[in-house]
Amino acid sequence: MKLEELGEFGLIGRIAARITPSAGIRIGIGDDAAAVTTEPGTVSLLTTDMLLEGIHFDLAFCTPENLGWKSLAVNLSDIAAMGGKPQYCLLSLAVPRGVPVSFIDGFTGGLLACAAEFGVTLIGGDTCSSRSGLVVSLTVMGEQHPERVVTRSGARPGDLILVTGTIGDSALGLRQLMAGHRDGRAIVRHLEPSPRVREGLVLAKEKLPTAMIDISDGLLADLGHILKCSAVGASLELARLPLSPEVSAHVSGETVDPFRLPLSGGEDYELLFTIPPDREAATRKALSPFGTSLSVLGTITSSGLRVVDPNGRDYPVIAGGYDHFSPVH
Amino acid sequence: MKLEELGEFGLIGRIAARITPSAGIRIGIGDDAAAVTTEPGTVSLLTTDMLLEGIHFDLAFCTPENLGWKSLAVNLSDIAAMGGKPQYCLLSLAVPRGVPVSFIDGFTGGLLACAAEFGVTLIGGDTCSSRSGLVVSLTVMGEQHPERVVTRSGARPGDLILVTGTIGDSALGLRQLMAGHRDGRAIVRHLEPSPRVREGLVLAKEKLPTAMIDISDGLLADLGHILKCSAVGASLELARLPLSPEVSAHVSGETVDPFRLPLSGGEDYELLFTIPPDREAATRKALSPFGTSLSVLGTITSSGLRVVDPNGRDYPVIAGGYDHFSPVH
Repeated sequence: MKLEELGEFGLIGRIAARITPSAGIRIGIGDDAAAVTTEPGTVSLLTTDMLLEGIHFDLAFCTPENLGWKSLAVNLSDIAAMGGKPQYCLLSLAVPRGVPVSFIDGFTGGLLACAAEFGVTLIGGDTCSSRSGLVVSLTVMGEQHPERVVTRSGARPGDLILVTGTIGDSALGLRQLMAGHRDGRAIVRHLEPSPRVREGLVLAKEKLPTAMIDISDGLLADLGHILKCSAVGASLELARLPLSPEVSAHVSGETVDPFRLPLSGGEDYELLFTIPPDREAATRKALSPFGTSLSVLGTITSSGLRVVDPNGRDYPVIAGGYDHFSPVH
Repeated sequence: MKLEELGEFGLIGRIAARITPSAGIRIGIGDDAAAVTTEPGTVSLLTTDMLLEGIHFDLAFCTPENLGWKSLAVNLSDIAAMGGKPQYCLLSLAVPRGVPVSFIDGFTGGLLACAAEFGVTLIGGDTCSSRSGLVVSLTVMGEQHPERVVTRSGARPGDLILVTGTIGDSALGLRQLMAGHRDGRAIVRHLEPSPRVREGLVLAKEKLPTAMIDISDGLLADLGHILKCSAVGASLELARLPLSPEVSAHVSGETVDPFRLPLSGGEDYELLFTIPPDREAATRKALSPFGTSLSVLGTITSSGLRVVDPNGRDYPVIAGGYDHFSPVH
């Protein structure tokens, strides 16, 4: 069936029918706005991301389900980076003519699977036709007690810099996709990233991080945001970067800027955060129930950024992170 | 200056620098998510709309300022239709390469002027480049006490159907633009609609409407949403339609479906609502401070839709409202 046969309101009804209601929703899809309750004493956390075909994704490389999952996951990662509990999402979708309803069903299926995994409910949105490619815009609302919210601006000299999981896999996965591969662990991490929502919540609840961000633009770029917002510097040891065997093999095989992928590849959606040194044991303990690995990358300094390679030499920092308006890509 | 020279983070900083902080904002632009407080005892209202170049707007017909104003205004209109108080907005913007920074400044200026007019603060968003046209996605959050929120589903047989202001002007304005005209009252209403935020708030506060919607798809289509959600019918008298002199002249000049513009033109962003008949005087009194005209269009019935022309004859309802996936446009 084509979208033209279903119509705009048919599509909205079709999506609405797949949603499991949740307790805090007074009014969901189908009115002028949604109405939701918030927990007394909390602040509302809001984030939004737009994904465009040909810029953020290539439908030759991903299934509609992948795209639906990732569209929500990247927003949940932002809420996780604040230590928040994501609750509700709004979806705007511009769809080119001729797209089959099965594509939308797949997309919605992936999005709702991600929503279910992290306790989020779709409460509204907007649908329209597009004369160019597919456009997806997601907004996520979450909550947290204000004293637990973690910003980018609390890092202090002497703090340790930590990261969850491994980095560089997503960028490697994208390279593999572009080289014609269609499966493997790195590709899965690129197509269906797993936001660190549970980890972020526990870290916030126990007030462990002094600053936190999720890695979307790239480790160096996102660390740069923490350094700028906190008015501090950092010293990083590349020997301590948590690399999967695949990324490690890639790094070993590169001669020019070998650490470019883990340092600047981006889209890892891991949590990068700082803690006072005496909180390392508590942090490891807090994350242990999730089986999420945790690595100390270096320390916060008073200013500047020093990156030391595995041989103890200064590593020249060549690449920055992703800038959407940069003329170089 | 080109956007490429400013860069993504330069653009975000440039927008952030123009924003006046407001009391409820704990964290605004520049972190992973915004954090805002909500009034105890209220529910949060959330709505989102996406506008695409070539679908929703034509840059040959509007200034960047117009577009910025309208992008926010259409979302505020949705909050108004719930009787809510809009507070915060998030803006996602995909910009084609080569767009000058002055365009973005104009767009932001229009958006922030609308925000200031209605007490809304921009708290976050997303910017990226687009390989096709400009894409704007706005999300607005507002609040209201739950017992005051007005839905589409409370209309009861015997209720009066009312509308604020005049209708058909926006559709006439679009026709005039397409015919080469560049100014006039109808064109202003099309390019910079004024959402009925204050009117919606007063109506909700005094618990006057039983159902309410804003006219975006067209009077008949939006009335249809109320009828469907409330499981009722309606009887409309075309003689009572509030028409500006320009729209009135247009209607007089048409022979086929003369009322098509006011009935189905859409984008009026007036409030269409129902009240028990004994609340008409109170409703007029509530809106009198705003100088907003108010018209009774007909009554809610148990089922069906009857439209009566100025000569007392049944008017054949030809056109529905706007459906983004309909093959006819």
